Amino acid sequence: MDNYAVDKELLMEESLEKIMELLVEKQYFLARDELLKYNAVDIADLLQEIIDDSGIQMAVIMFRLLPKDTSVEVFAELPSDDQVNIVNEITDKEIAFIMDEMDFDDKIDILEELPANVVDKILDQTPKSERKQINMFLNYPEDSAGSLMTPEYISLQKKWTVRQALEHIKKENMEAETVYTCYVKDTGRKLIGIVSLAKLVISDDDTRIMDIMVTDYIYETVNTDQEDVADDFKKYGYLALPVVDKEHRLVGIITFDDVMDVMEDEATEDIERMNGVIDFEDSDKGYLDISVWQHAKNRLPWLIILMIAYIFTGRIITSFETSLSKVIELVAYMPMLMGTGGNCGSQAATLIIRGLATDEVDTGDALKVLWKEIRIGAIIGVVLSILNYGRIWFIDGVHNPGIAMTVCASMLFIVIIAKVIGSMIPLIVEKIHLDPALIANPAISSVSDAVALSIYFAMAMTFLPI
Amino acid sequence: MDNYAVDKELLMEESLEKIMELLVEKQYFLARDELLKYNAVDIADLLQEIIDDSGIQMAVIMFRLLPKDTSVEVFAELPSDDQVNIVNEITDKEIAFIMDEMDFDDKIDILEELPANVVDKILDQTPKSERKQINMFLNYPEDSAGSLMTPEYISLQKKWTVRQALEHIKKENMEAETVYTCYVKDTGRKLIGIVSLAKLVISDDDTRIMDIMVTDYIYETVNTDQEDVADDFKKYGYLALPVVDKEHRLVGIITFDDVMDVMEDEATEDIERMNGVIDFEDSDKGYLDISVWQHAKNRLPWLIILMIAYIFTGRIITSFETSLSKVIELVAYMPMLMGTGGNCGSQAATLIIRGLATDEVDTGDALKVLWKEIRIGAIIGVVLSILNYGRIWFIDGVHNPGIAMTVCASMLFIVIIAKVIGSMIPLIVEKIHLDPALIANPAISSVSDAVALSIYFAMAMTFLPI
Repeated sequence: MDNYAVDKELLMEESLEKIMELLVEKQYFLARDELLKYNAVDIADLLQEIIDDSGIQMAVIMFRLLPKDTSVEVFAELPSDDQVNIVNEITDKEIAFIMDEMDFDDKIDILEELPANVVDKILDQTPKSERKQINMFLNYPEDSAGSLMTPEYISLQKKWTVRQALEHIKKENMEAETVYTCYVKDTGRKLIGIVSLAKLVISDDDTRIMDIMVTDYIYETVNTDQEDVADDFKKYGYLALPVVDKEHRLVGIITFDDVMDVMEDEATEDIERMNGVIDFEDSDKGYLDISVWQHAKNRLPWLIILMIAYIFTGRIITSFETSLSKVIELVAYMPMLMGTGGNCGSQAATLIIRGLATDEVDTGDALKVLWKEIRIGAIIGVVLSILNYGRIWFIDGVHNPGIAMTVCASMLFIVIIAKVIGSMIPLIVEKIHLDPALIANPAISSVSDAVALSIYFAMAMTFLPI
Repeated sequence: MDNYAVDKELLMEESLEKIMELLVEKQYFLARDELLKYNAVDIADLLQEIIDDSGIQMAVIMFRLLPKDTSVEVFAELPSDDQVNIVNEITDKEIAFIMDEMDFDDKIDILEELPANVVDKILDQTPKSERKQINMFLNYPEDSAGSLMTPEYISLQKKWTVRQALEHIKKENMEAETVYTCYVKDTGRKLIGIVSLAKLVISDDDTRIMDIMVTDYIYETVNTDQEDVADDFKKYGYLALPVVDKEHRLVGIITFDDVMDVMEDEATEDIERMNGVIDFEDSDKGYLDISVWQHAKNRLPWLIILMIAYIFTGRIITSFETSLSKVIELVAYMPMLMGTGGNCGSQAATLIIRGLATDEVDTGDALKVLWKEIRIGAIIGVVLSILNYGRIWFIDGVHNPGIAMTVCASMLFIVIIAKVIGSMIPLIVEKIHLDPALIANPAISSVSDAVALSIYFAMAMTFLPI
């Protein structure tokens, strides 16, 4: 067992209780000392608990008592809602201090979330050159490489020696993740090469940068979609990637830690889309922070589309109504056949959509996939048909071979066809350059429902005297 | 647009065509030169295309023509199936060379996939001390921190100066991602602190390591689940985390690039589970590499469980058969009501399961979630009911207020109850410490199907003379 993690969780719970007691007794300094046992990420977690429990005012009191540099780090780790709440409670001077100390990319993230009047107030207190840069960064499209990058990077001259480079790095005194890759630019600010800090450290002091820099590096452009950026990080395993503009001038870098968040957000988006939820606000807000109205709005489109699709399913049943009323027992097996078809389809669709997302499958594999799913469907269909025959005969006690044959033959064909539909639709959607995750399992289910009913009724007419 | 990515893709396609032509003309050296325009990751991609197109023999010819060090890098980037294929085609001496040059963690990954006789052959040619270490690493449970880590890290003495440390690092000459964090151990090999390379570079040469090392670092234990490791990386944003044994001795480190793969695998596993696919082999194999039988085996369990669940749905319908045959029009709306209920349930379940996975929701929020879903369900239910009334009256032309009321009232209740079921089941499963993703949307659908039918028939008895 991971005793460390368990211990730490217990420890933090105890600390939280202690802090809550101290806050009730107005022992703010003792409460602060308890908080300071932890690192910034954990303090941010504890502060959120304080907000939930004792309200924002109490949290702001604690926040103000933190050492200045810790408070900046903690602020950067808070969710944006809590950041806005804190900004509303503290003075302009305090806001200016926090903003000034914060890493550039965190600053941009926060400014994107704050209300316009607060942003204006902050920008008023920012030096003009930085204000220009902030405005440029705020203008990159959301979800683009530009919105992920930071302009804080180490830039070197190609004629420098390793010694000069290391001295330069020492002087810049930057934080860890932005310092491990250094960038070499020509006089026109064009990126011409990269050198890792590891390479600098293991090279001789008098080596020229131009002799150790890598020139066939991977890079991104400002408008690249963040999903493609994340794919490059996964593929090449780099710590940071440079971002260039149209003239190949270096405008910023993206570090791996920002990409981890992107990967999580993109996985969430895919999972939600596949299950019929579309986040119209495209927000990073959690479930609890999204309003009831927004939740309803995100979920209604697919439900309405499906309702329309079910008009056709209804028509199929209506056209078969007279026969159905003659052998009313058939109705009892409809939910199972439709449900199994829908599940078979969404199993196949899930595997293909995920395969496309992780580049294990591509549209060129369509025939291979088709043949595979037909065989998988046949195996599953035969197994389920045999089980069903037993169920109908022994459990339901329906000793009517016509009905049993109708259900079992339907089951076999429904499973195979649902597998084919579920696997082919995502490939078709990918082929026409749309996001396969947008297909959504509900759509696969409704198509396979209609197919399932048609097959069922066709089998009924084959095996039953109707 | 991301012209770079597009350009690069085109460029690689052109190169591939050129290589294929050169291979046909047996111009192997020219083909190799074309390959060498790319980095190891891309060469591995191209080599896979060659395997698909011209077979493994041709790929091995190209592989052998690569410069030795490149061939090792390329080998490490190939999927395990292709690695095994290549190992089967090359000499023991070549295998030994590749294994010897490879990073330790890549070596372990490959040994885990190779057939036992090949592994034995490789281990025979490995020095005894390393063989012992390899065997230790091969024994860590799959999916544990131990199986992710590498024993290649920089270890420093606390009494050293920064100058001594940097000289030591220079001598070790290790690859990039393992060098950025250095580890300080006491005489008993216990981990006592960490220092980042960035800190070393910006510190004065005569500073003692003990004065700049961080002692409240985050660490993992060998048996920690890889998912928890990934969570810590996401939470704290570090490049590497140390792994210790029970005695707090440093046994290895995990670097961020290995964790990115874990994040992707875990997301895939969650997505598959939620849609009723269980990967029994727990393999990292892609869709196309899994056999038809294995695919069938992975998908059958949920389908069989659901078939059993649908026995109850069948019973509900059977008990209502006589009434149903009197108002046979009711059957036409069954698929829509069940389908909408299932989709509403899985929308809610998806959001809650994902919220739990990303720590945005926890079991303590159950009441908040319940109240939220009831309100969301009411809004959606009212909208869909009104639309349905219109559909029944104007599109279907069923001018029977009893049927219209039955369908619309059912819709409202089904949506609300499906939302409640879909959101509460994952929270209950989490509460009893199981993986909520295991619930699977198919299960939610089958429960909501049974509920939907019960509500529908209850409404029919209320609004219709049956």
